[in-house]
Amino acid sequence: MTKTYARLTPLADSLPATVPFVGPETQERARGRPFAARLGANENGFGPSPMALSAMAEAARDVWMYGDPENFDLRMALAAHHGIAPENIMVGEGIDGLLGYLVRLLVGSGDVVVTSKGAYPTFNYHVAGFGGRIETVPYNADHEDPVALVETAREVGAKLVYIANPDNPMGTWHAAGTVQRMIEAVPEGCLLVLDEAYVEFAPEGTAPDLAPDDPRVVRMRTFSKAYGLAGARVGYAIGARELITAFHKIRNHFGMCRISQAGALAALHDQDHLRQTLDRVGAARRRIESIAQQNGLHPLPSATNFVAVDCGADGDFARAVLQALVQQDVFVRMPFSTPQDRCIRVSTGRAEELDLFAAALPRALERARSSR
Amino acid sequence: MTKTYARLTPLADSLPATVPFVGPETQERARGRPFAARLGANENGFGPSPMALSAMAEAARDVWMYGDPENFDLRMALAAHHGIAPENIMVGEGIDGLLGYLVRLLVGSGDVVVTSKGAYPTFNYHVAGFGGRIETVPYNADHEDPVALVETAREVGAKLVYIANPDNPMGTWHAAGTVQRMIEAVPEGCLLVLDEAYVEFAPEGTAPDLAPDDPRVVRMRTFSKAYGLAGARVGYAIGARELITAFHKIRNHFGMCRISQAGALAALHDQDHLRQTLDRVGAARRRIESIAQQNGLHPLPSATNFVAVDCGADGDFARAVLQALVQQDVFVRMPFSTPQDRCIRVSTGRAEELDLFAAALPRALERARSSR
Repeated sequence: MTKTYARLTPLADSLPATVPFVGPETQERARGRPFAARLGANENGFGPSPMALSAMAEAARDVWMYGDPENFDLRMALAAHHGIAPENIMVGEGIDGLLGYLVRLLVGSGDVVVTSKGAYPTFNYHVAGFGGRIETVPYNADHEDPVALVETAREVGAKLVYIANPDNPMGTWHAAGTVQRMIEAVPEGCLLVLDEAYVEFAPEGTAPDLAPDDPRVVRMRTFSKAYGLAGARVGYAIGARELITAFHKIRNHFGMCRISQAGALAALHDQDHLRQTLDRVGAARRRIESIAQQNGLHPLPSATNFVAVDCGADGDFARAVLQALVQQDVFVRMPFSTPQDRCIRVSTGRAEELDLFAAALPRALERARSSR
Repeated sequence: MTKTYARLTPLADSLPATVPFVGPETQERARGRPFAARLGANENGFGPSPMALSAMAEAARDVWMYGDPENFDLRMALAAHHGIAPENIMVGEGIDGLLGYLVRLLVGSGDVVVTSKGAYPTFNYHVAGFGGRIETVPYNADHEDPVALVETAREVGAKLVYIANPDNPMGTWHAAGTVQRMIEAVPEGCLLVLDEAYVEFAPEGTAPDLAPDDPRVVRMRTFSKAYGLAGARVGYAIGARELITAFHKIRNHFGMCRISQAGALAALHDQDHLRQTLDRVGAARRRIESIAQQNGLHPLPSATNFVAVDCGADGDFARAVLQALVQQDVFVRMPFSTPQDRCIRVSTGRAEELDLFAAALPRALERARSSR
């Protein structure tokens, strides 16, 4: 009999070896062919500020040094940008990394967490990974349901309740007032995780005023989307000082890439580039909407850098459309859960990539219809 | 009474808000003055391969894309480099990040882990962070004690036993045969963590042959030291496939910086630069030894990119020497535990930085002696 040396914890032993998202590179290797249009990961093909690129090139020369474990310069700049104190800000390895830390701080075996059915799977991955139990609330007309989320959190005694505003994967959003009412209604003993990864794309009046010392909510922001730095892995949390301080108990203090720190700092300072990006993303979003409509499909209103396109039938049909797009080298994704999975999710991108999507969609629909 | 919303787990609540190492930038901000010589973090001032810099500049243009969550290209290259299978390799956010994952997989509340008293504090930080209990074994003549480590692991039923070879902070090392005997002696139910962060600097015959499917040991390697990419955060673990697969259960799949992935890949391919680095580090090590000896101090033999310099008295004296070096803008560190804390730890660096160390040391010793 083989002897065992690595004894996993019962929890680790029980977990599946999984991945919340299969990367496009994995698909490309399986297909033996690269994608021609990369419109599936809600990345920002308009790219980061040229100032961020310069700053990263400069920082690369110093990459023999560890990055500042306090992320001091970036936190100071974020504090000034938002008009809050740096003590209310925790910088980390993307929102994914920060969600992992947050869940680790709050969720132990059997603790309950509430989210929407079909919302961000990486959050669920972290909850499961720390032994938490997930209670889900259905979407309401393709929107996350703030009232039901908070009510359920109260009923089950949740430690965390998660909402993304704007939402991923549907692109829908709630006005600031609705979110503020959600914050007001959070039950004692429960923390609201307000994931604002896409908030820069949203109309004015989507983000509630920052009240960083509000103990009821922690907000997540990122440089991966509007700032075009997904590959750099820089996110930040805004929350009450006591909570932010708690991250220091468990975080990987030297975990931040020095080049990424510099890139994010420079990107933040180039708000002109951000505004240009928002314009470009807006135009690309309208183009996706128009392509969808030209093909008789219904694009959902979006406050993000992607559009959920209702393919007009069930999940099997949308999956067939997606598959036929992928076969034509157009990388897109789709929601995991019914009924949202009647949609495909198309990220905004450069004109040439949307041209490929426009060309591929009619054939994809034809193939999907013929295989029904 | 204030209401509580964020309810930390009992474990998280019990942990201190800490940092295993205070960064030099933090010290610089406190001093109000930058360091002139950065010789404290065992970084590699000779820098990475120019090929790595080019690859990172190239990758920066694509930083709007997430990095490949499988780290496929880097794992394939590492597999070819080591003559092992990619399934035996896990790439992660530095050894610090990988140690965190490993501890999370194996160590739950009350599980016991064995390490040397005064060895790598970040490992201990992770163990404490997951509720583990740390048993320590003293150094033996400034070397970690492989026999005592394994014996203690057996006595206490440890899940992990940690050794760094070469050792940090002392720079001492064991020959491959000694490590191999340690592997053979690891008790059932215990995994040996062999931290080889500095192994590229060590003489031939320091690293045991790679037997990657050996279930008794997991080895940690990094691009932070010999490859000069500390700020990029790229490390890798080599271990049995079953253990490596288990990392997929909990790791931050999209956690790697895309620029760092490219930098590490290119650095690995430039073994000529690595050889030049090893020559430079060797020369700098001899220079530190010579500076120490000229000041009547005893440099410990080192197989790393730093030298532990025995200041010839107790920890208080060494701390005074260190403090006086820091006051002269020379950043160095020292061991945390007695009796190793009779030493200061000086990283190799460029000639101009060692010049500053050489100039500052006599005065530092004078100040330390006069304050006794």
